[in-house]
Amino acid sequence: MAGILDLVNEANDIKKIKPSDYKALADEIREFLIGNISKTGGHLASNLGTVELTMALHLYLDFPADKLVWDVGHQAYTHKLLTGRKKEFSSLRTYEGLSGFPKRKESDCDSLDTGHSSTSLSAAMGMVQARDIRGGKEKIVAVIGDGALSGGMAFEALNNAAELKSNLIIILNDNKMSISENVGGMANYLGKLRTGDKYINLKQTVEKALNNVPGIGHIIADKVRKSKDSLKRLVIPGMLFEDMGLTYIGPIDGHNLNELSTALLSASKAKKAVLIHVITKKGRGYKPAEKNPSYFHGVDAFDIKTGKNSKVKKGITYTEIFSDTILELGEKYDNLTAITAAMPSGTGLNKFKQKYPERFFDVGIAEEHAVTFAAGLALGGMKPVVAVYSTFLQRAYDQIVHDVALSSLPVIFAVDRAGIVGNDGETHQGIFDVAFLSHIPNLTVMAPKNGAELKQMLIFAYEQNGPVAIRYPRGKAYEGLADHNEPIVYGKSEIIFQSNIDGKKKNAHKNRILLLAAGSMVETGVEIRDILTREGREVTLVNIRFIAPMDTELLTDMAASHGIWVTLEENIKHGGYGEGVAAYLFEKNLRNIKLLNISLPNQFIEQGDVNVLKDKLGFDAVSLTNRIKEFASEI
Amino acid sequence: MAGILDLVNEANDIKKIKPSDYKALADEIREFLIGNISKTGGHLASNLGTVELTMALHLYLDFPADKLVWDVGHQAYTHKLLTGRKKEFSSLRTYEGLSGFPKRKESDCDSLDTGHSSTSLSAAMGMVQARDIRGGKEKIVAVIGDGALSGGMAFEALNNAAELKSNLIIILNDNKMSISENVGGMANYLGKLRTGDKYINLKQTVEKALNNVPGIGHIIADKVRKSKDSLKRLVIPGMLFEDMGLTYIGPIDGHNLNELSTALLSASKAKKAVLIHVITKKGRGYKPAEKNPSYFHGVDAFDIKTGKNSKVKKGITYTEIFSDTILELGEKYDNLTAITAAMPSGTGLNKFKQKYPERFFDVGIAEEHAVTFAAGLALGGMKPVVAVYSTFLQRAYDQIVHDVALSSLPVIFAVDRAGIVGNDGETHQGIFDVAFLSHIPNLTVMAPKNGAELKQMLIFAYEQNGPVAIRYPRGKAYEGLADHNEPIVYGKSEIIFQSNIDGKKKNAHKNRILLLAAGSMVETGVEIRDILTREGREVTLVNIRFIAPMDTELLTDMAASHGIWVTLEENIKHGGYGEGVAAYLFEKNLRNIKLLNISLPNQFIEQGDVNVLKDKLGFDAVSLTNRIKEFASEI
Repeated sequence: MAGILDLVNEANDIKKIKPSDYKALADEIREFLIGNISKTGGHLASNLGTVELTMALHLYLDFPADKLVWDVGHQAYTHKLLTGRKKEFSSLRTYEGLSGFPKRKESDCDSLDTGHSSTSLSAAMGMVQARDIRGGKEKIVAVIGDGALSGGMAFEALNNAAELKSNLIIILNDNKMSISENVGGMANYLGKLRTGDKYINLKQTVEKALNNVPGIGHIIADKVRKSKDSLKRLVIPGMLFEDMGLTYIGPIDGHNLNELSTALLSASKAKKAVLIHVITKKGRGYKPAEKNPSYFHGVDAFDIKTGKNSKVKKGITYTEIFSDTILELGEKYDNLTAITAAMPSGTGLNKFKQKYPERFFDVGIAEEHAVTFAAGLALGGMKPVVAVYSTFLQRAYDQIVHDVALSSLPVIFAVDRAGIVGNDGETHQGIFDVAFLSHIPNLTVMAPKNGAELKQMLIFAYEQNGPVAIRYPRGKAYEGLADHNEPIVYGKSEIIFQSNIDGKKKNAHKNRILLLAAGSMVETGVEIRDILTREGREVTLVNIRFIAPMDTELLTDMAASHGIWVTLEENIKHGGYGEGVAAYLFEKNLRNIKLLNISLPNQFIEQGDVNVLKDKLGFDAVSLTNRIKEFASEI
Repeated sequence: MAGILDLVNEANDIKKIKPSDYKALADEIREFLIGNISKTGGHLASNLGTVELTMALHLYLDFPADKLVWDVGHQAYTHKLLTGRKKEFSSLRTYEGLSGFPKRKESDCDSLDTGHSSTSLSAAMGMVQARDIRGGKEKIVAVIGDGALSGGMAFEALNNAAELKSNLIIILNDNKMSISENVGGMANYLGKLRTGDKYINLKQTVEKALNNVPGIGHIIADKVRKSKDSLKRLVIPGMLFEDMGLTYIGPIDGHNLNELSTALLSASKAKKAVLIHVITKKGRGYKPAEKNPSYFHGVDAFDIKTGKNSKVKKGITYTEIFSDTILELGEKYDNLTAITAAMPSGTGLNKFKQKYPERFFDVGIAEEHAVTFAAGLALGGMKPVVAVYSTFLQRAYDQIVHDVALSSLPVIFAVDRAGIVGNDGETHQGIFDVAFLSHIPNLTVMAPKNGAELKQMLIFAYEQNGPVAIRYPRGKAYEGLADHNEPIVYGKSEIIFQSNIDGKKKNAHKNRILLLAAGSMVETGVEIRDILTREGREVTLVNIRFIAPMDTELLTDMAASHGIWVTLEENIKHGGYGEGVAAYLFEKNLRNIKLLNISLPNQFIEQGDVNVLKDKLGFDAVSLTNRIKEFASEI
């Protein structure tokens, strides 16, 4: 039997559906989402929470003329379903498949490419101002979660939105969660609004009372009237937003289409920014996700009946090693403190949080604050560890420069998800950190070759008196080279395999290959070296350990014995380690050396399985070996 | 006659002063500040506004045990005066002199190195948490301006501060100004608080009334009581802050020592974050500054009697050329929009603001929002220009990557104050932008050789369909090379002086020098070339114009005719243009070329006159020429 969802094949089709079928449509959408995501993996809980909200928005807006801006964007699956992308869902988050986020190239119903948090209000503000300058008439709506509202940029936009003289609708999608439980003053305030008295009844009672009471009653009434905002203050919820210059409507049941539509209609009349406070339930309609929305925020494929991950776990991850090590350090040192920006689970700090709650800080989605807060902790005698994904640390570049590095404060940055991250695509790849970190004065940047070395590096970083960033990849930790565990010495590389350099063959040094590998590329370097040595090449493999500062002593030493140098790094080229080596060779006039810089290309990298992407980029060991052989032969 | 100020020679000395002498002390401090700053230049208006506030804080706190964190820090002159740095004031903001900002190396009474806005609350939060973990007892106070409160990071910290279970005092120093007039919802709200009813009286009246009225009165009273926060909401000002989880005290007259001291004492008792809302007057006590606080925010030396700048203006600045060009473009194109983060005057947008108010946006101190807001404008069909100082653009790195470059939106970044900026020191030098911008995919980075070329580049940038950043220095624009004005072609350099390359001298190309100069270094390149050619060297000077992408065609061409290459750039080395050239030469196996990368060193650069700093860094034409000669001869 054909369902209601079958009738919705392109944008605005939903308007043809009978209101009596809305409930069935919502159910079918949920069924579709659960069925698909159980196979592909993806963001489940947030999407189950926004089904009715998205339907209400699609009934209200005309696509593509009107603009709908999703914050972060992982909750836009229903929007994709309703705008002609149903068939592509089986390719969700795969190479060349449907993106897990809004993408303008996918559909003209997507108005902004997103991925990072708290950008929607700023972008929507810009669209509103552009509309008004053009004299356009399109509606503009931004949907932001209560979690994203803890990002400072969202506040900057709210603050600016008070200046608007025309309509902007802001939907505050309040599900009490970031990825984990929400924190902070704003979250507490929203909690009060959610559970608050029915202000509206109070308002009527008070107004009636004030108008009717003889004697002292009218004195109060007068006072209240004279104080302008005070009555409003007494009887209207959401005064925080009203005080900020917005109109507040809510709280609204985000699973009630009637309430949502009425609120949108009412909001559309204001010539200013209106905030509709919508309460939704993360995971709604799927019990396992309702029970554990944090787990079902982003999931791998799972069994629908049990909700259990159907993917077999393949070994210990870098995140888990970080997690265990930080627990050990916490045990040993009582000034070890740990900070996350709303990702205690993703970054591996959950165990530390359990054991040392007084030294654990979840500051909300607030990377800037997280870093300067860490600076404050360091000034107060603590050794703070900021655990953060590479891509999100981009948010705190100035704080690292200005608040940490300038004063050379001992803050440790545990930069997880460095390098190619995979299915989340362009917005989430950790490919820029080397370029934006390694030029910062006083900041040491390291990368471990394997899981054991991550532990070594964390311990080493604890012992330093200045800031240290350690970048490590997503996923399973490399377990090879277990017996290569020389103690870490500041600024010094580790020679993994030293080619025999005493050979008497003429010009041997000219053809001898030096692989200078950073972090994840040491594993690749091992494979490359294996192939090359099997083919009779002399190859030395160095784990550089320190991306900054560069181990110039090693470089100088190697110059005499190795004629062909290859740098290997999993980050964009410009501003990377390889360019530093090139500059150093010219500086020291070591122009007899042939240098090949291998890195990711200077471009954004699309979504896909990490291995698929590496293959497409020619970043697998075989392709790289061929590149090196070609380079070594041609010149 | 010895004054009261003479009795204050080190921290805590102020506690020995009789209360009856406080007024005299404040007067003497103002006299001292005006007298000194009229000679040295510096931040005047904000410091005149915080005299009594600083005195109250010094009466309340014990230095250096207690911690006082100044936001931005330009308002801390009185704090410096009261902590033993009176004698150093004549060296204010000069090389090796007294810093215009708090500096931990100057005094143990300075608790945080600052310069950028909105960092104080985060750092103070960290200090509080560290204190509590240690079991310390020190008091911690942060002073933040109403302008700095528009920065998102301050909001992130306020949001987080609600979680505090011990004392933190936040002084909101409300003078209605950033550098210019304040904007946004928060500023409007503070305005209402400033001019609001005397809530406290209302509260008493209402409470009495509710308790005493028979009949309907008690119904209201009951309702109000049941609604918990509502009475509070009716009668307490600053509910926005209370809603956020802070305790609000205010508004307090920031020039009344008694009121200030009472508020501090009262705030000190709370086991949570308390915000004291203090109203001060920028420029207080000096009429010209009271009248024009924006001008007297940061001034050069001036005549005390008239308030007029005593420095002779030396020519048109880059900022002025930007200002005029943007006005012309605004006239010609009605989709040209301009954005500033609270610096309409400093960035040169004041004229545009006057003429095209509907296309001008001052978003407050909010660089992140400014950039993503610009992305929204671009998506709406506008051509936005974000005018911002290099050092403050650091705040928006992720927004440039994620919201502008990823979608390749046509946003123009007018990056003023690039390179060495001078007297504001480490926190304000524009030395990182090349490193943090030029690796961003899709982003074009340019630098003009002179004033006329800045105009050309702005027009060129307007015509592009992707993002363009143009970096230019503080101060007077170079007027030389006026006849070198080839049209700009995308990605192409401009050859300023081409050495004769047909010479038959043997090995001539090996000794021929190629100067590849970026932006401000073209002027220096002209001087260097003059010296070298006078000495018989063959020298080609190229204005690279495009820092990214690199003009690889030119590099390939030049490789055949020039054996000695010198890159010249005014930014830190790693991640700069020169390293890109080095990598390119290796990539193309052009190892016959000798390459010298000249740039600023990889370090923070202290305060001082720009020319003094350049001399100290060996960045003047003569020193650089000598370096080049030495390099050319030794290898």
